[in-house]
Amino acid sequence: MKPHAPYGARRGAARPWRAYAAEAAPSWPASLPATLAVANAGARHPLADDGISLELRRRADEIDAAFNLIEPTLRGLAPLQFDAGFVPVAVETVRGRLGLDVPPDMFAAAWTTPLDMRALHARCVLGTFCRLVTRAFDRGLARLSDGEPAADLIRRWGFHALDITPCADGRLSGVVDFILRVPPAIVAFRESHAGAMFDVGESVRHWEQVELRRWRDGVPNQPDAPTRFLKIGVYHFSSVDPGHQGCAAHGSDGVRAAAALLERLEQFAAAVRLTQGDAADAATLLIGVDTDTDAVRVHVPNAAGWMSVDRYVDNLALYGRTQSLAREAAKDAIRAAVADCAGVADDDATTEGMRWLCGYVLKNNIGQIDAVRAWHGGRYDDAGHTERLIVVGDPVDDVQLRNLAFQAQMNTVEEAASDLDVGIRILRGLHEPRGLAVPVLVHFRYDARIPGAQAQAQVRARRLSGAILARHAALAARGLLHVQAVVRAGNGTALADVDPAARPELVAELH
Amino acid sequence: MKPHAPYGARRGAARPWRAYAAEAAPSWPASLPATLAVANAGARHPLADDGISLELRRRADEIDAAFNLIEPTLRGLAPLQFDAGFVPVAVETVRGRLGLDVPPDMFAAAWTTPLDMRALHARCVLGTFCRLVTRAFDRGLARLSDGEPAADLIRRWGFHALDITPCADGRLSGVVDFILRVPPAIVAFRESHAGAMFDVGESVRHWEQVELRRWRDGVPNQPDAPTRFLKIGVYHFSSVDPGHQGCAAHGSDGVRAAAALLERLEQFAAAVRLTQGDAADAATLLIGVDTDTDAVRVHVPNAAGWMSVDRYVDNLALYGRTQSLAREAAKDAIRAAVADCAGVADDDATTEGMRWLCGYVLKNNIGQIDAVRAWHGGRYDDAGHTERLIVVGDPVDDVQLRNLAFQAQMNTVEEAASDLDVGIRILRGLHEPRGLAVPVLVHFRYDARIPGAQAQAQVRARRLSGAILARHAALAARGLLHVQAVVRAGNGTALADVDPAARPELVAELH
Repeated sequence: MKPHAPYGARRGAARPWRAYAAEAAPSWPASLPATLAVANAGARHPLADDGISLELRRRADEIDAAFNLIEPTLRGLAPLQFDAGFVPVAVETVRGRLGLDVPPDMFAAAWTTPLDMRALHARCVLGTFCRLVTRAFDRGLARLSDGEPAADLIRRWGFHALDITPCADGRLSGVVDFILRVPPAIVAFRESHAGAMFDVGESVRHWEQVELRRWRDGVPNQPDAPTRFLKIGVYHFSSVDPGHQGCAAHGSDGVRAAAALLERLEQFAAAVRLTQGDAADAATLLIGVDTDTDAVRVHVPNAAGWMSVDRYVDNLALYGRTQSLAREAAKDAIRAAVADCAGVADDDATTEGMRWLCGYVLKNNIGQIDAVRAWHGGRYDDAGHTERLIVVGDPVDDVQLRNLAFQAQMNTVEEAASDLDVGIRILRGLHEPRGLAVPVLVHFRYDARIPGAQAQAQVRARRLSGAILARHAALAARGLLHVQAVVRAGNGTALADVDPAARPELVAELH
Repeated sequence: MKPHAPYGARRGAARPWRAYAAEAAPSWPASLPATLAVANAGARHPLADDGISLELRRRADEIDAAFNLIEPTLRGLAPLQFDAGFVPVAVETVRGRLGLDVPPDMFAAAWTTPLDMRALHARCVLGTFCRLVTRAFDRGLARLSDGEPAADLIRRWGFHALDITPCADGRLSGVVDFILRVPPAIVAFRESHAGAMFDVGESVRHWEQVELRRWRDGVPNQPDAPTRFLKIGVYHFSSVDPGHQGCAAHGSDGVRAAAALLERLEQFAAAVRLTQGDAADAATLLIGVDTDTDAVRVHVPNAAGWMSVDRYVDNLALYGRTQSLAREAAKDAIRAAVADCAGVADDDATTEGMRWLCGYVLKNNIGQIDAVRAWHGGRYDDAGHTERLIVVGDPVDDVQLRNLAFQAQMNTVEEAASDLDVGIRILRGLHEPRGLAVPVLVHFRYDARIPGAQAQAQVRARRLSGAILARHAALAARGLLHVQAVVRAGNGTALADVDPAARPELVAELH
């Protein structure tokens, strides 16, 4: 391990630990929803961040509202399908209410062939997700911390890139923006897998890519800077119903989930150390999420860099212990809890950077715990799954929200069959009883500068779509599985249909 | 493009272009096979290299002899299978003649269940291949050129790594050692695909890995050295029967094969240039092989670095034109042909390095053309396929020989189904009429230093084996497909069975 504390001990203490993110966030109108205003009247944690939390709540409401319009809209159209002049009415209704352009022939019903409302519903869900992606929510709410860009700050404390692997479970769909509250600028990679069981070789390739850019371009910093690549693994558990609402990939056993992920993190760190030369190093951090409260457990590494499944800072308890303190005292309490968990003095120089990072995560997450308390009475009403779709292929991070999507990164079903099956099983349980199909978005990114890259991405998207339909052919034949392939020229651009006829076109943005 | 001629024009001319490789090769006994001695009495090319050619011939004979023993050995045992005391006799016979330990119960026949000779044959073919891998042939025959290590020489002429992608076709099984005659020390990557259709992203990752080692470790040279990564694509065609014995993946159309590969090489070069920063650069070279004569076509890049399907040096013609010249005159003729093809003067500084490399390849290949003339009358008797097995997964290069193995690198059948199907179709056509099963070796490498890597490789090997059997289930059910999974801790180590019961154990080396 390299030494990581070139700045002197407790440098963080000299700066106010208040997030300035609210200054960067767009201003919001005075007329907040009544529920917000009422809920916010309760007692707040001194480290709560209303600026970020309110903006996230507004975003959550917008996303929920968009999806919640789909069923009533289509339900209202269904009884009218045999009426004369129905088709233009339906097209206009879907365009006006959902912002989606559905090809008119999808509304052409006959008395022997009524509308395929399942397919229409799935297409509208996928279309709405794609529309929200192009909505371009401001994901940099937490871009500033202590008035300093988060990326600079994190680098100053010893980390030049974050690689986050959460579980594919939809309750972690908001892990970056809501639960950890870290800005995308510092997240070099976010790839989800069932049970967070990432491929070690793929993570080493991430490390290599970041390292090569440092050497070649000095981005994000010079290779001799005393900073490390940090791989964060995020498992989850349920405090309300631990035996049933935990991680499906690990038999709803939180300890098993944590132990398996810790082992994988240790394999990754060893792989970097042993294959990349003497000076090579990668930091790892194990984090657990209680999906009922969004509170994290941070498994703080000890002085030797080792973590343990049993040794962690429980942020829900920490929230309780610090709720009535003054801001500075609350921050001191976090620092003390982290140092205690690491088993070091709170001015230990070797562990300083990692302890700062753990404190940063805990403090950010206190804002989310506080928001869940304010708006959901401390625990979500739905302990379980309510995902609206499955996203596979390359990651999509533009739209974040708890229980929005079961998202599993994969190139092939052959390698990720169990990930896919977990997702299909979960969404089938949610959708089939309501007579709905499981909507699956197959998504691959490409670099538009490279000749042939778009065509190659389309080939991959078609291939993965075909493999999903082949594996779940019976479900698809019954109209209970709907797969749509899209490709995208990098983040910030629209998702383009690989087969344009298969999804309603986007209308000009509603917002 | 970077300038590549820091050493002054025609520096190559000052050095004798005679290969010193024979000095490095092990000496061979006076008692050569009669066929060799007779064949070698004919007229030779001044650039022929008997030292390498004779050693390669000896190796080819050893490999052929090992495989050719299998059928008569098993054929001789078959009629005895119901004899009393057959099992120990069979075990000893296979051990003594083939060097393989077959579990005794595989020889336990009953009058209602005769021996599964197809399975035994396939296992012995796979076992023999694995035994030959551990035989550790000296693959560095061409390690010296002009008395200088080939790696140093190639680096001095502007290239720090070679990435070779041939077609998966078994007639290119000897492409590195026999046809191109380059030592493994300069081949950083050799991965085969049907039609040589490599994945551009995977090749960029190869480039990144090499580049990172240069930056971090100065291996093989410093990153500011004026050298490039060279990607060589190798397609093939048949001069004897162009419409039928060409590349199956491109409809036996040599021009189509060359054009498709050239486009892929251009995409790779563009991807490096456009995604890796301004100073990034990769060289590419398109080479065609006439599988009847092993003669190459080298598509020499012009002054701007561009190649053309129509513009190449035909080495068979060049062999004919230079056969009666003195050594130095023959070398001058090669240099002139390369410069002419590039459309530059033969002292053009910009293209010097690439022209030298093309000349190096042509001169090496003249040795192989000469060997094929000496031993096969200039053209192989078998224009078509006679592959003995299929190798999939990670590459195996230790045993090289024309028509030894159809070898296609893949992680999943899902991505490489067409590669697999081409191979199965070819080998089925060869084996099924003889009542034999198609033997498939699934092989993955792992880094033994990384905890969990061996288990991970075993998982991958089992998964790919399962996917192959699933895709060709009917063939497998009829006993006409035999798949064996092995893993290996890097080159130079033995192949270890993933399922030890499924392949005869190796006996102590016969040689």
